[in-house]
Amino acid sequence: IESKLPEVKTTIFSSMSALAQQHQAINLGQGFPDFDCDPQLINYVHRAMTAGQNQYPPMPGTQILRQEIASKVSALYQAHYDAETEITITAGATQAIMTSILACVHSGDEVIVIEPAYDSYIPTIQLAGGIPVLVGMRFEDNRFSIDWDLLASKISSKTRLIIINSPHNPTGMTLCKADLDTLAAIIRDTKILLISDEVYEHMVFDGQSHQSVASHHALAQRSFIISSFGKTYHVTGWKVGYVLAPKLMSTEFRKIHQFNVFTVNTPMQVGIAHFMQDHQHHLNLSRFYQQKRDYFREALANSKFRLLPCEGTYFQCVDYSAISNQSELDFATWLTKEVGVAAIPVSAFYREQKQNKLVRFCFAKQSNTLINALQRLQQI
Amino acid sequence: IESKLPEVKTTIFSSMSALAQQHQAINLGQGFPDFDCDPQLINYVHRAMTAGQNQYPPMPGTQILRQEIASKVSALYQAHYDAETEITITAGATQAIMTSILACVHSGDEVIVIEPAYDSYIPTIQLAGGIPVLVGMRFEDNRFSIDWDLLASKISSKTRLIIINSPHNPTGMTLCKADLDTLAAIIRDTKILLISDEVYEHMVFDGQSHQSVASHHALAQRSFIISSFGKTYHVTGWKVGYVLAPKLMSTEFRKIHQFNVFTVNTPMQVGIAHFMQDHQHHLNLSRFYQQKRDYFREALANSKFRLLPCEGTYFQCVDYSAISNQSELDFATWLTKEVGVAAIPVSAFYREQKQNKLVRFCFAKQSNTLINALQRLQQI
Ligand SMILES: CSCCC(=O)C(=O)O
Ligand SMILES: CSCCC(=O)C(=O)O
Repeated sequence: IESKLPEVKTTIFSSMSALAQQHQAINLGQGFPDFDCDPQLINYVHRAMTAGQNQYPPMPGTQILRQEIASKVSALYQAHYDAETEITITAGATQAIMTSILACVHSGDEVIVIEPAYDSYIPTIQLAGGIPVLVGMRFEDNRFSIDWDLLASKISSKTRLIIINSPHNPTGMTLCKADLDTLAAIIRDTKILLISDEVYEHMVFDGQSHQSVASHHALAQRSFIISSFGKTYHVTGWKVGYVLAPKLMSTEFRKIHQFNVFTVNTPMQVGIAHFMQDHQHHLNLSRFYQQKRDYFREALANSKFRLLPCEGTYFQCVDYSAISNQSELDFATWLTKEVGVAAIPVSAFYREQKQNKLVRFCFAKQSNTLINALQRLQQI
Repeated sequence: IESKLPEVKTTIFSSMSALAQQHQAINLGQGFPDFDCDPQLINYVHRAMTAGQNQYPPMPGTQILRQEIASKVSALYQAHYDAETEITITAGATQAIMTSILACVHSGDEVIVIEPAYDSYIPTIQLAGGIPVLVGMRFEDNRFSIDWDLLASKISSKTRLIIINSPHNPTGMTLCKADLDTLAAIIRDTKILLISDEVYEHMVFDGQSHQSVASHHALAQRSFIISSFGKTYHVTGWKVGYVLAPKLMSTEFRKIHQFNVFTVNTPMQVGIAHFMQDHQHHLNLSRFYQQKRDYFREALANSKFRLLPCEGTYFQCVDYSAISNQSELDFATWLTKEVGVAAIPVSAFYREQKQNKLVRFCFAKQSNTLINALQRLQQI
């Protein structure tokens, strides 16, 4: 069998989690919480199952969940998406990314990807026959930012799609309104489409609020906007996400979706919808995670690590150059094996494994887990 | 947005289910049971959730479920698949089909599809850049069969893959050992791969047993074998299936899988695994569905419909030529609207909408549902 993706290995998230388990390290690598979801959410899923809601839902998802999403997006972002034709439930955000790319990238199309980038983007573009065009973020004074002029210079007549992600994994950077305006001006006279990966939309800190592409009309008109219940409700293993897109784009998305997964787990969808009906849309998630972030940062301030800013997500990047000269992968491996704390090398988010002496920690963990991990990290 | 799949419409299953609901017809169209799963299965899923098994499982699926599948396949088919490297849990069989095709079909490759064919095969091949090469089944004396000589004549140097499906949706035909031997002889000196869609493996009637490709070594070596818990455990809405493939093929499958859905719902996987530990592997499903099939056939013997054989699956095809001259889609629509029983036109399983005056009924329904539907059908 001749490989379609010869360069692809097991993702760094899986291999670091496996290494962490093997060495009984505290796993601050792969992004998932080590605490439970609200028991009421489980009750609602159970109720759906016992009520017999175990057969195929409609292909784009259950109506009740699509309507709850429409309400949420309207309340939070003043954006109006039609539940019938513009909202599709997916088997997690990753499937939404794959399906969006397959739906719009034709053979030979160029897709602009901002690096560091979530590791699924590039292979998925290649699978669709597209050509990834990489735009590195600026990295100055231990701070990442997007160089929009550089991005604009990479646009060609073949550019079909740009992928953005805010709050940004792994850097914790967020886009502001001015960034979206700049991007809108860059693509105004083109037919370029957008994927906006907003899975960390409810984790934005320091009193800022998430700038969703949904609330930016000029961009929203040409965007697949992707989010994830796994991240918002602490159930990464449930694999339920969604995509918002204008009707014509949703139509193309659904053509692929119906032959990819066809549809998504019914009782999980119903349970999540009932849970949404009960709760504020954001669950004070930003406050919840900001406490963890602040605790984590304060503890690391007394260590040899240098902290990068963290405006959103549940990830904290740190510079380890005062500790070691190793490559990021070697350092993360050493941290896991010898210090007992697993981390993700930021180089894993670059095709060319760029070395900035940075690793990423996930702070979506119980206080005890963080305390134990921080003790180990402070002793280095 | 320029369509990647300009010819694709909403699947016939969705549109017929919608029409059935609109006209309050009894839905014998889309294939799903109208009865509940075993409550114990729900209990196990609930237990997994309350035990906190709600985060990402390993990318290829939970170990416990992969091991249960390995045991099942070993017990039923004397086939040995390594749970670690050769079994991957998927978000239903459809995702397994999509991912298998994306993993092995390169641009310009030919893929042989036997028609009538499940409606996802052809668009999925096209999405991968492949060329579907269609081989029509023989249809003589109201009986479908595969013309292996015809199939052999369609093989070219570009043929990458052949898709087979037994028990076969929609015809109810099953392949026997001799069929598999014939196929093995045809492809022996080639590098052609196989997808064997066996989602109805546990519904085979009249004392026959399912001939899995898993037990045919020469074929198994080059096959993706796909099955579905939704069909076996009466939970089509849970979207859990799996694929068996030799290590190198599984490696390529997983490269795509990890960037498609990454992984599959954890508590559903754990619940299914515990349920498998308690139960016989086949749950006497063949006996259960044979009773329904026999009841359905006996009742229709006194109608104007002519019955096709049904060796497996939960589908019964009938010839309506003594009733109407309409196209299959028109007849199925009329049945739904005027008679109050939804069916699927068999033409929907042909790219060229071939007209044999056949519709497909799903008999995976409670006795009462079948009684009511049959009363209506007998009155025509
Ligand atoms: C799909 S596993 C990776 C989880 C995640 O989003 C991350 O750790 O970055
Ligand atoms: C994916 S919906 C269709 C269910 C099914 O397999 C069928 O009705 O043929």
